[in-house]
Amino acid sequence: MPLIDNRSRGVFVIAVTPFADDGSIDVDSLDKVVDFYFEAGANGLTILGMMGEAPKLTQAESIDVARRVIARSGDRPVVVGVSSPGLAAIGELSRAVMDLGAAGVMVAPPGSLKTDDQIVTYYGNVAEMTGRGVPLVVQDFPLATGVHITPGVLGRIVAEQPDVVMLKHEDWPGLAKISAIRTSESSGQRRLSILCGNGGGFLPEEMARGADGAMTGFGFPEMMVVVTSLAGGGDLERARDMFDAYLPLVRYEQQPGVGLAVRKYVLKQRGKIASDAQRRPGSTLTAEAMREVDDLMRRQSKRLGALA
Amino acid sequence: MPLIDNRSRGVFVIAVTPFADDGSIDVDSLDKVVDFYFEAGANGLTILGMMGEAPKLTQAESIDVARRVIARSGDRPVVVGVSSPGLAAIGELSRAVMDLGAAGVMVAPPGSLKTDDQIVTYYGNVAEMTGRGVPLVVQDFPLATGVHITPGVLGRIVAEQPDVVMLKHEDWPGLAKISAIRTSESSGQRRLSILCGNGGGFLPEEMARGADGAMTGFGFPEMMVVVTSLAGGGDLERARDMFDAYLPLVRYEQQPGVGLAVRKYVLKQRGKIASDAQRRPGSTLTAEAMREVDDLMRRQSKRLGALA
Amino acid sequence: MPLIDNRSRGVFVIAVTPFADDGSIDVDSLDKVVDFYFEAGANGLTILGMMGEAPKLTQAESIDVARRVIARSGDRPVVVGVSSPGLAAIGELSRAVMDLGAAGVMVAPPGSLKTDDQIVTYYGNVAEMTGRGVPLVVQDFPLATGVHITPGVLGRIVAEQPDVVMLKHEDWPGLAKISAIRTSESSGQRRLSILCGNGGGFLPEEMARGADGAMTGFGFPEMMVVVTSLAGGGDLERARDMFDAYLPLVRYEQQPGVGLAVRKYVLKQRGKIASDAQRRPGSTLTAEAMREVDDLMRRQSKRLGALA
Amino acid sequence: MPLIDNRSRGVFVIAVTPFADDGSIDVDSLDKVVDFYFEAGANGLTILGMMGEAPKLTQAESIDVARRVIARSGDRPVVVGVSSPGLAAIGELSRAVMDLGAAGVMVAPPGSLKTDDQIVTYYGNVAEMTGRGVPLVVQDFPLATGVHITPGVLGRIVAEQPDVVMLKHEDWPGLAKISAIRTSESSGQRRLSILCGNGGGFLPEEMARGADGAMTGFGFPEMMVVVTSLAGGGDLERARDMFDAYLPLVRYEQQPGVGLAVRKYVLKQRGKIASDAQRRPGSTLTAEAMREVDDLMRRQSKRLGALA
Repeated sequence: MPLIDNRSRGVFVIAVTPFADDGSIDVDSLDKVVDFYFEAGANGLTILGMMGEAPKLTQAESIDVARRVIARSGDRPVVVGVSSPGLAAIGELSRAVMDLGAAGVMVAPPGSLKTDDQIVTYYGNVAEMTGRGVPLVVQDFPLATGVHITPGVLGRIVAEQPDVVMLKHEDWPGLAKISAIRTSESSGQRRLSILCGNGGGFLPEEMARGADGAMTGFGFPEMMVVVTSLAGGGDLERARDMFDAYLPLVRYEQQPGVGLAVRKYVLKQRGKIASDAQRRPGSTLTAEAMREVDDLMRRQSKRLGALA
Repeated sequence: MPLIDNRSRGVFVIAVTPFADDGSIDVDSLDKVVDFYFEAGANGLTILGMMGEAPKLTQAESIDVARRVIARSGDRPVVVGVSSPGLAAIGELSRAVMDLGAAGVMVAPPGSLKTDDQIVTYYGNVAEMTGRGVPLVVQDFPLATGVHITPGVLGRIVAEQPDVVMLKHEDWPGLAKISAIRTSESSGQRRLSILCGNGGGFLPEEMARGADGAMTGFGFPEMMVVVTSLAGGGDLERARDMFDAYLPLVRYEQQPGVGLAVRKYVLKQRGKIASDAQRRPGSTLTAEAMREVDDLMRRQSKRLGALA
Repeated sequence: MPLIDNRSRGVFVIAVTPFADDGSIDVDSLDKVVDFYFEAGANGLTILGMMGEAPKLTQAESIDVARRVIARSGDRPVVVGVSSPGLAAIGELSRAVMDLGAAGVMVAPPGSLKTDDQIVTYYGNVAEMTGRGVPLVVQDFPLATGVHITPGVLGRIVAEQPDVVMLKHEDWPGLAKISAIRTSESSGQRRLSILCGNGGGFLPEEMARGADGAMTGFGFPEMMVVVTSLAGGGDLERARDMFDAYLPLVRYEQQPGVGLAVRKYVLKQRGKIASDAQRRPGSTLTAEAMREVDDLMRRQSKRLGALA
Repeated sequence: MPLIDNRSRGVFVIAVTPFADDGSIDVDSLDKVVDFYFEAGANGLTILGMMGEAPKLTQAESIDVARRVIARSGDRPVVVGVSSPGLAAIGELSRAVMDLGAAGVMVAPPGSLKTDDQIVTYYGNVAEMTGRGVPLVVQDFPLATGVHITPGVLGRIVAEQPDVVMLKHEDWPGLAKISAIRTSESSGQRRLSILCGNGGGFLPEEMARGADGAMTGFGFPEMMVVVTSLAGGGDLERARDMFDAYLPLVRYEQQPGVGLAVRKYVLKQRGKIASDAQRRPGSTLTAEAMREVDDLMRRQSKRLGALA
């Protein structure tokens, strides 16, 4: 049961939760898509995040999903989203999934936080609930949470909470934030692992700025693997060529709300999950949108062929 | 096990959840404060709402509190708050508490709802999760939720969801909304029970506009009882005299955030709960604030004496 | 042409802008209501704030109103609201009204500010636009602006901007903030004048916490005068008696949105302005609401009589 | 002096406002960039929008800019943004620019609008202020305004306000909205011109869904021209090839806040404006960001070469 730490790097795919058309959890597809993520080169997984439809699961289902994914992942790390309006629920779910072998837990700040001090205090409360020794990931996603965490505030959290080891970076714009954090670290601030989200839409620039990898979803997770790998190896030009080939679909899948429907449709078309059903409230693709995605996949395939 | 319906009236006190100083649930105080509410004249209770610190309870604790309060309340109705970011959790908690004998469940809209149609759809999804026959209370509290429900939108919900039987009214300003709903009802819209919140700060006017009572908390629930009772009996002038005597403390307790600390302090000073502790995140009264509350209680007592 | 400074105290009434029923500015009523405010004991006025319907005036009208009120006020200080989405407009209006003899300008933060640092930077930009020597009032009204200014952030603004001399305090809850500021000042932070808003609904407690007075509107500004005067003279018990008599109407007038209609209706009923018309978008009182206000005034008058 | 109408199509470039390094308006660069936009194939311009730094101009400057751009544009239509917190200012600026020969005015809804009815009422008030015969553009940009306008609400506005002739479409996601509007129009709803914003990031799909063109900015406005032209001519595959070549830079320039700095830097590098200075509050590019933009331009140029 590996734990993440502040040197963790590579690609942690945000896993979808597959449902059958009747709304039940499709455990066979869950196994299959987990296998697919690792075959595509993922270094780890993140489950029960916003794009994993976590709020649509009962608590018992959440724990079942965590148990199954962690078991299937073997010795690869699985981070579990435990965000909740209440600290008690965060502590409860965190204990449960860490007992199952999770590699760490991720918490996004609730929208009720209004000031810098409130954010710092919040992560203090969270760390006390999850307990010493449980690696914490701060999810910094202002577009979704409404909470803006400056590099300075993050620095205060890092200084006060030794268990905060990773930033799921999805501020937008966010490049300057990566540079600011790395600059602070060169002046003595404790290092954080920075894994980038937002569908990977800025991954080449993020890697060049000092990110350690990606923690995000996309119907073609091999994009994140190849871009982080090439960029990590110093071949940024080739990384960009590959990235550009995927970008039209990345952009399309990155649409808020409807994006998950795109992602599940792509995974279904690729044979990785049996159904693209979402539990309510969820979005579905119209016939027009499906044609758009089909076209994007066709053009992407052609472009990748030319690059091979 | 009584159920609420669209003729329910009187005072449903929003119950506090008493904690011991070590953060554990103080079940003796819970019994005691439940008894106190009914002795003060409450017609029913509402538990696990925002002011009941519901998000600070684990799911198991929530069900324990519901079980104990429902049992203690005997044949008096207990409404249970089941708001959650996820529909699955709403369904899960609703089934659990209805099995325990709850009189109905209350749901506030999540802040992610942006348009009229989204609000209407949301309550359709909620009603499907809680199931036919479970009385639903719509909590309309824009200051806390950020969601604005117009009388027209409420009318659509009432038309589509037969199980919606009650409005917990705490829009601010909200008097015109009560009048608008009652006017629509006189033109054929199905009747709703309207119980008013916001600490009772507009209770005389709300009763005169056609509300059926109060569903709110205040350290002196006898205020809500005497005002609704006098107003219901037609003696609005006397109702206002009594209301005015309590108003300075009502105002003070109605402060967002710190209000719950005031309420628990008052209940502790009155001997109804053993400790005014809150679980984190919670507010505490400074010495200065305690003196202010003490002063307000002293002056209130004097004024009530003059009115007796 | 007096200027405000960080020792300014007493009552600055937020002046209404009277319109004729055809929507034109009623300059006779403007003169009359200005006279009334000073006869009631005001120490100064604040114009072109949110409750002065400033956004409904053209720029030329705003300057006309400022010119007339400043002239009419003689040697009494007039603070002018110059909040705007754009810094250029703030600078432009500030220069214009200071040239006319304003005592200072007031700026509320725009809702786009999300972090502590952004707030501090914003007031730096504002101070540069308004220019050295122009007294600045920070309007701290989170309920309306969505911007939360902690005592620490305010301390940074005070340290960096010597022209910031006054806080229009209308956070809610806000009592702890007054105490926090005064505590910081006792440790060397430069003093601010603190004048309280929010319709005066917490004025006795605010004065006891160290506020210097009130900057707010209410149809009976004599309430603010008598409460600040008695509290300032140490007779807090009598201040509270007077306050309590006005509180039911204070509460009613403090309703967001509809409150201005109440205030103008009261001023019209008292013969201080000719019409309670508002420019669009504005609110009007229904017949039911007028009866409620009439009742509140009748009861208030009776209670004040008993206290005389 | 042409007016826009509900059949207007093509590319309306959102013009930047060039400043000299000392913050004064650089009128020579303004002329030059206007000429550039038309040489690049623009059908019209839109000025004084959010990306034109309108809030940083005084009212006199705004009118000067409008006068100069309208004169320079000759018989090509110029739409002017007149959004303001106050209706009076909207009316005032609208009259001024229509007198100067503007083709219409654009208004974004203020963030204070919370319900469907409030949005509909707001555009009624706006239309009354701007006056019969002045073509109105509804700017639908929820990410920036916080106001969500459903197709149904837009239909109500279209039905009630004959002067609303155009939608500046920048909802995100927004493709389904275009389809919904066109579907309603096929059932009798009055036609709107739909010009798309958001930096053109979805332009091929938007054109295929029935949009009439683009109203947005981008350092290479020739992208919008070629994509709308090819798509309008039915060659969607070639339109996409061209679009894909520009997409990496489109994506980079579309970052909120910093995007305008990118746009101005690109225009300066291309020799279209003398300085990329912004008035405060503004963003500037770090050396790192400049290198990223330079790289993106270099790669874009290479790719366009391969497509030629």
